[in-house]
Amino acid sequence: MTSTALLDSLRQIVTANHVLTDGDLSAYEQDWRKRVHGKALAVVRPGNTAEVAAVVKACAAAGVQIVPQGGNTGLSVGSTPDNSGQQIVLNLTRLNAVRHIDKDNLTFTVEAGCILQNLQELADKQGLLFPLSLAAEGSCTIGGNLGTNAGGTQVVRYGNTRDLCLGLEVVTPQGEVWDGLKGLRKDNTGYDLRDLFIGSEGTLGIITAATMKLFPQPAAQLTAFAAVPSMEAAVRLLGLAHQHLGAGLTGFEVMGQFALSLVVKHMPQLRVPFADMGDEAPYCVLLENSDSESEQHARLRFEHLLELAFEDGCVVNAVVAESLSQAHDLWHIRESIPLAQAEEGLNIKHDISVAASRIPAFVEHADEVLKREIPGVRLVNFGHLGDGNLHYNVQVPEGEDGKQFLREKEALVNHLVYEAVAKFDGSFSAEHGVGALKTDKLEKYQSPVALQMMRAIKNALDPQGLMNPGVVLTRA
Amino acid sequence: MTSTALLDSLRQIVTANHVLTDGDLSAYEQDWRKRVHGKALAVVRPGNTAEVAAVVKACAAAGVQIVPQGGNTGLSVGSTPDNSGQQIVLNLTRLNAVRHIDKDNLTFTVEAGCILQNLQELADKQGLLFPLSLAAEGSCTIGGNLGTNAGGTQVVRYGNTRDLCLGLEVVTPQGEVWDGLKGLRKDNTGYDLRDLFIGSEGTLGIITAATMKLFPQPAAQLTAFAAVPSMEAAVRLLGLAHQHLGAGLTGFEVMGQFALSLVVKHMPQLRVPFADMGDEAPYCVLLENSDSESEQHARLRFEHLLELAFEDGCVVNAVVAESLSQAHDLWHIRESIPLAQAEEGLNIKHDISVAASRIPAFVEHADEVLKREIPGVRLVNFGHLGDGNLHYNVQVPEGEDGKQFLREKEALVNHLVYEAVAKFDGSFSAEHGVGALKTDKLEKYQSPVALQMMRAIKNALDPQGLMNPGVVLTRA
Repeated sequence: MTSTALLDSLRQIVTANHVLTDGDLSAYEQDWRKRVHGKALAVVRPGNTAEVAAVVKACAAAGVQIVPQGGNTGLSVGSTPDNSGQQIVLNLTRLNAVRHIDKDNLTFTVEAGCILQNLQELADKQGLLFPLSLAAEGSCTIGGNLGTNAGGTQVVRYGNTRDLCLGLEVVTPQGEVWDGLKGLRKDNTGYDLRDLFIGSEGTLGIITAATMKLFPQPAAQLTAFAAVPSMEAAVRLLGLAHQHLGAGLTGFEVMGQFALSLVVKHMPQLRVPFADMGDEAPYCVLLENSDSESEQHARLRFEHLLELAFEDGCVVNAVVAESLSQAHDLWHIRESIPLAQAEEGLNIKHDISVAASRIPAFVEHADEVLKREIPGVRLVNFGHLGDGNLHYNVQVPEGEDGKQFLREKEALVNHLVYEAVAKFDGSFSAEHGVGALKTDKLEKYQSPVALQMMRAIKNALDPQGLMNPGVVLTRA
Repeated sequence: MTSTALLDSLRQIVTANHVLTDGDLSAYEQDWRKRVHGKALAVVRPGNTAEVAAVVKACAAAGVQIVPQGGNTGLSVGSTPDNSGQQIVLNLTRLNAVRHIDKDNLTFTVEAGCILQNLQELADKQGLLFPLSLAAEGSCTIGGNLGTNAGGTQVVRYGNTRDLCLGLEVVTPQGEVWDGLKGLRKDNTGYDLRDLFIGSEGTLGIITAATMKLFPQPAAQLTAFAAVPSMEAAVRLLGLAHQHLGAGLTGFEVMGQFALSLVVKHMPQLRVPFADMGDEAPYCVLLENSDSESEQHARLRFEHLLELAFEDGCVVNAVVAESLSQAHDLWHIRESIPLAQAEEGLNIKHDISVAASRIPAFVEHADEVLKREIPGVRLVNFGHLGDGNLHYNVQVPEGEDGKQFLREKEALVNHLVYEAVAKFDGSFSAEHGVGALKTDKLEKYQSPVALQMMRAIKNALDPQGLMNPGVVLTRA
């Protein structure tokens, strides 16, 4: 089939309005951070699962590769077409129906193109909680969250996107529809295809809908900000918080003082607590306590925890938000770090994890190596300590030219960070996935036995190699 | 390679002591419920992962099939050799080391042959909780729990075995070792092989070790027993319990009055509350509340919940255990139902799930169909309502010959129950797996698209078809 014939077929399936070939398609053809610019044969926007299946069948018959895409907010270049002008971008944002809300089962079934924030708000209106929460929630889609197994700020309590999903509807590389949307909490009838598709970044098939877990809304949510004397102390505080808040612990974020100093510098309107404590408190921790009883009870539990933490010495100063607005301000500090980094200049981002118990030794080792090998380097260390996940970022040395530094040092920085991660049995990609950006890291750091099995699975499910080629696995 | 040559190789690998070919091997060769009796070429008991890998390599070279086995307590005949005398039973109970406990990461890494109850006790000694709990815990192994994705009584809070696992070590069908034991809570570096192996019942490879999650111990645990006027009311009570106990709700079991009457009849030493309430309370619910604060607080929360439930009308009578011993007695009632069933005579067991919201309509429908089609049938309905999982069992009609009834009616009973389950989008195997017992049900009720993918994966990872043949998938 020629490209023209395929485009005609696709126009018949989704109507000509939804086969985009002209004009500015950069929103679909370049990645979120605008580092990679591709050129698609067309951007196809099907409106329902049957259309997705028909599009995939047409592409499979034509031997044309497909790049599935949701909100295109990924940070690892997992939904960007190559430069060939021969790939189809299959954008799922028109599949945005909420098919069913089942309050008694605490689930809803939603289509892949639903915007995460809309789902949070929908749950909220039902008096329920959909706990997935991350920076891009205003524009990312649940399909993308599933494809990448997105993490975010509430993983310490509710898990990653995988843990929130009870079932999928998937269009296979052959254009068949698998309906796995029963919404059961227990179902042992064969291999776990659901979790295989989750996190496979569109390389095994296309997630078109999902049944996701909902939770009762907490009666109250309180936020505290604590200054800690060391990373070891932060880990001790995490242990105390697990013990005394139990499942009430819904957020545990760590921030290094240099990261906070960038917020102080570039967002002067934000009041950052404990920013002046120097070596006495090299890190601060943001804690969130969700309580099924009352605000008063949440406050009592928080105060009890902080008393124990002061006695232990793992907290040297702390403040508990007195109002929702104060809580919001504290979270805003944490969420402003990436923007403050951007204001400060160019930087190199990492999304790594190690076991929480090993975070202090990892940080000490990585800090030491980076400072030794790259004089003047500035370390912006923050992240979801409750999950062992750090955004261990590197800011260009003061006064140096950013572009030149990146050109000369980015590869070395990445090498040093990922070697340190490997030394502590960690992961080079905790929550952002592999995409096309980190396939070489996967080759290097993933177990060869695991890689061999992944390739066998890819070949078995997508023998034509048409689904998101070059993402996750470079060769099958 | 001849069988003799293979046995010689195996003796060299694990020593002759651990290649069992003579004497009474029925503990290895028949299933837990003694319905299927096989004959193995040998029972091989390797002592570590390297020996497992060497055994698998030797068998693969000889083209000999392998039946992996843990405590051999499965209910779906998933670890029983066939009658050919040509299969190797690879028993993993000698792999019983606890490799590492990481209190700060809330994980431990344990070998497949560890007995579940030993792991619970080990966690307890560390002041932590390993929440997996099920009837066979005194003899089942964690490897078997993982292979079948076992459920149990605390799934409503902690999830199935899958949800408790952070990583696996697996020997592949080629005899390679995949070390996936990093113990990370976030790691998006390629396909989710972990969850593919979990629940694959030894058909894709052999789980030799796992890193499992631990939890803080609750400060207090309280149990209540409530009489409810209908299954609808039980589901309403579940919703209230989710809302007001939050993650404190760690158990929610339902029991029909006929199931309880069998306990009253056959275990007269047990005091069963509300057994005399007749139609006023056709079901009872056992609730467990785990509290991170104190027993007093747990009791206040429970009392608050029960007040609301009385007001709502979804509870007509209730008792909260006043002591650990009373709580133990209440759980003992629930746990005695299978034994009481056995005392009463032969019965047909099911392990089904539907969405919790649909349980009342399912039960009404299934009860009606069974009573109509099989006059005198007695329904023993109980299970983990919090997960939508019922053990919807069928007791032989009073006065009928059990063996004859099973011969004539077992297939019909199963058919009626599973058709009802399918009508309500449920699962014919919630927590017991497929094994060799339910492969025909898998063929009939699983999606053909899903089956096709499962077969492709099986062929890709085990092209020789040597791993637990005839389990899960009958033909690849």
